[in-house]
Amino acid sequence: MTTEINRRVVLASRPKGVPDAGHFRVEDVPMTAPAEGEVLVRTRYWSVDPAMRGWVNDAPNYLPPVEIGAVMRSFAVGEVVDSRDPAYAPGDIVTGRFGWQRLATVEAAAIDRKVTETDLPQSYALGILGLNGITAYFGLLDVCAARPGDIVAVSTAAGAVGSAVGQIAKLRGCRTVGIAGGPAKTALCRDRYGYDAAIDYKSQDVAAALSEAAPDGVDCYFDNTCGPISDAVMTRLRRGARIAICGTAAIQDWDPLPIGPRVHRQLLVARARMQGFLAFDYADRYDEARAALADWLRYGQLVSHEHVLQGAAAAPGAIAMLYRGENTGKLLIEVD
Amino acid sequence: MTTEINRRVVLASRPKGVPDAGHFRVEDVPMTAPAEGEVLVRTRYWSVDPAMRGWVNDAPNYLPPVEIGAVMRSFAVGEVVDSRDPAYAPGDIVTGRFGWQRLATVEAAAIDRKVTETDLPQSYALGILGLNGITAYFGLLDVCAARPGDIVAVSTAAGAVGSAVGQIAKLRGCRTVGIAGGPAKTALCRDRYGYDAAIDYKSQDVAAALSEAAPDGVDCYFDNTCGPISDAVMTRLRRGARIAICGTAAIQDWDPLPIGPRVHRQLLVARARMQGFLAFDYADRYDEARAALADWLRYGQLVSHEHVLQGAAAAPGAIAMLYRGENTGKLLIEVD
Repeated sequence: MTTEINRRVVLASRPKGVPDAGHFRVEDVPMTAPAEGEVLVRTRYWSVDPAMRGWVNDAPNYLPPVEIGAVMRSFAVGEVVDSRDPAYAPGDIVTGRFGWQRLATVEAAAIDRKVTETDLPQSYALGILGLNGITAYFGLLDVCAARPGDIVAVSTAAGAVGSAVGQIAKLRGCRTVGIAGGPAKTALCRDRYGYDAAIDYKSQDVAAALSEAAPDGVDCYFDNTCGPISDAVMTRLRRGARIAICGTAAIQDWDPLPIGPRVHRQLLVARARMQGFLAFDYADRYDEARAALADWLRYGQLVSHEHVLQGAAAAPGAIAMLYRGENTGKLLIEVD
Repeated sequence: MTTEINRRVVLASRPKGVPDAGHFRVEDVPMTAPAEGEVLVRTRYWSVDPAMRGWVNDAPNYLPPVEIGAVMRSFAVGEVVDSRDPAYAPGDIVTGRFGWQRLATVEAAAIDRKVTETDLPQSYALGILGLNGITAYFGLLDVCAARPGDIVAVSTAAGAVGSAVGQIAKLRGCRTVGIAGGPAKTALCRDRYGYDAAIDYKSQDVAAALSEAAPDGVDCYFDNTCGPISDAVMTRLRRGARIAICGTAAIQDWDPLPIGPRVHRQLLVARARMQGFLAFDYADRYDEARAALADWLRYGQLVSHEHVLQGAAAAPGAIAMLYRGENTGKLLIEVD
């Protein structure tokens, strides 16, 4: 083991907004043997998530920014190859905050869980059975409090989170309208993810298309974008509407605060609620979400699609690719 | 009765934004005798409320706009002098949607209730025991879900609603910060309404003053203003903060939508919730609120102050006066 090389991706410089390939550096360094209380994980997939933009920017966030020269923070899944913590043994499949590195020597506390759904693809642990699926589950069912018969609008509707939101909403008896960019993605929304209607924000007037798809307005809006798409949805709120703010992909920079239409009157007239949330805050209920998602997957009621890039060299440009909307499904790096 | 004159205030022209004296006309017309199912009420006090701006503008609202030439819609309190509905008899003190008119001949359904707190001033029915107090009660306790120990910020803190919010918050064990305009109002906040701190938005930097008064941020914000005051409070949210949108007094016009700082990131980082509400939606719980408010008033735990203008001639300019912040306490017209 001691001669193995840890290929890793570190933050080379501090971006303003979305990081691109030039903000990272791939390097090969000697593996670090685990000390007491540490575990060595050979990672198989690295996650690429919208939240990673926030993790590298020096702006108020829920976690301190990744330091220059440090391994890029990320979720990953892989196999324990050495353990100096009694809770883990070689052969365990684990997921956690291992960063973009092939051989992660981490404190046992960095492991989020042992993956037990061994009948399902291992990569699911980073997407539909990881934070993406869990975010969709609680954002829709808890924050939006979606009920049967509700009209649910979803932005980035064909994405890793959005596609799960749309499908769970259908499972719960809602009517769904997906908003995505381009004909390929709206086709995915309709054909693969079962949306009742799909709006292409690149070629359609979102407010007008929404008026047609949902003439009485929307009860729930799962908001991954902020920006013009959300501004349009906000004009179509039904009384008592609930808006879950999951992400703000359409806004590149929050310092200084960008301006846009004030939402107060729309919230007041509709007696509507707008709420920010993070899946992390539901940690004590992850098992509930994962059990439901795994069963839906097993019975074919929920589908998940992944976009897998090959090798560490693909990682530096992956976040920018995500923000350009070029991925189809959950974006992952398969480790080389 | 039939020879009596009904002095009334009608909408003479459609304002854009805040109506001023020129948008109304005082006229004397013959009283209308009540038909079957109607009640004749001799009003004693007319209410002046911020919501009346919305009722005269031709913009999306929760009620259709008052028509040109029609009696101005308002709440009022007075005595039944003739009744052709078995539920009401001469001598009953009633409050309801009687409009700005001395002798209101209305369907019985326009009466909201018989006033039973005859030990308290009759005018209270329009303020602290009317929608103002009820709005404060549900906005703070239900929408903001204020809990003991919470830091509660209130805008228009010395106003009819705000002063009740601040006092109820103290009764519930919160720490309160009032935001009001000018030294006279901030003195009222501290000395009369018991706020722990008061900020003068006309002479102070609200965000900086709030950082000093509430270094850890605010848990609850009862928002009566929108605009720059609210923009400042939004930079000081504590995790899990709840914002109740009660009014938007700082914004003169919503068509087209005014722009301001986008709130999405602040709501996301703080996992905060922003919700519009109307007291009307709590109609089935009015009795609960009124009973609590009346008891607090009787035991001196809650105080209410009124600003009473004399006669119908004072009514046309009253809404503009309210928006200029020139009243001290609940603004009323005493009928001549």
